[in-house]
Amino acid sequence: MTHPDDTALADATKLALRRLAKSVVVITCRHEGRRYAMAATAVDALSMEPPSLLACVNRSASIHPALAGAEMFAINILRRDHEPLSHHCGGGAKGEARFELGSWDDEAPVPILADAQAAILCRRDATFEYGTHSIFVGRVAEVRTFGEVDPLVYVDGRYTGLHNSLSPMGRGLG
Amino acid sequence: MTHPDDTALADATKLALRRLAKSVVVITCRHEGRRYAMAATAVDALSMEPPSLLACVNRSASIHPALAGAEMFAINILRRDHEPLSHHCGGGAKGEARFELGSWDDEAPVPILADAQAAILCRRDATFEYGTHSIFVGRVAEVRTFGEVDPLVYVDGRYTGLHNSLSPMGRGLG
Repeated sequence: MTHPDDTALADATKLALRRLAKSVVVITCRHEGRRYAMAATAVDALSMEPPSLLACVNRSASIHPALAGAEMFAINILRRDHEPLSHHCGGGAKGEARFELGSWDDEAPVPILADAQAAILCRRDATFEYGTHSIFVGRVAEVRTFGEVDPLVYVDGRYTGLHNSLSPMGRGLG
Repeated sequence: MTHPDDTALADATKLALRRLAKSVVVITCRHEGRRYAMAATAVDALSMEPPSLLACVNRSASIHPALAGAEMFAINILRRDHEPLSHHCGGGAKGEARFELGSWDDEAPVPILADAQAAILCRRDATFEYGTHSIFVGRVAEVRTFGEVDPLVYVDGRYTGLHNSLSPMGRGLG
């Protein structure tokens, strides 16, 4: 399916998307008695009627069958000092070993990172397919926030944080 | 359809999502001889086979019918100093007046912001519906990048930029 032009276009697209700054999250779920976690950046607010968000996940990811089978999943927004956890859940560890790092609350229906910037527990409400990926839509069931706002950000192939001085001109987007 | 619990949950969800740092983009298209632009943050990389991305747009947005009708759209990733353009295209101006600010290249099939961090021209390849929003999937047709990496970021209801010192530990996500 791939010919040289596709490869060049994919490379150019990757270079362009390195400039789209993204909060780093860990997606978690529980399925058939096992816990799953994966670091990710392709997560967005979707609608507020109903409160919902989406996560794009490669069908080749080890968490994919669990997300497709589980009723619920959680989006845990990482804090700037969670960078080691992002490495760990981004490939550094596999399977249940991903939960050896971090403060996980296992009392919740889905494993929740206790000191995440925010943990958003969702009931899977729709799944769309495109190319190699599934778009999982979660309807929000429960929300937790913790601590000051200081998210871990991934941009230009690296981790960073936000500039301390937020713009005083800032105001809500339409 | 909305009852008090939904409203409380929507409020809690909004508070949590304020912590999800987002690059600011302007989505553009051309439809029936008119140009459309809207500042947005709900944009993600999707697949690399084929190179593609998605944008979540409220059906009540003025650009929505144009995006639904046009063959192509573009995602223009804003640079940190494009904050005034984000205000302008986020509600400060309406319709064609949104193009009075910024360096727009009107030779392209879709209006492209000449000094965007990156401009990604897409052919609309799928549309999914959920709640109040459409998820437009664009298959990448052409990509441009410009200048140093310094994206405009929206977090906690405000605009900011990235910390200068990128983590030396940074490495690719899996």
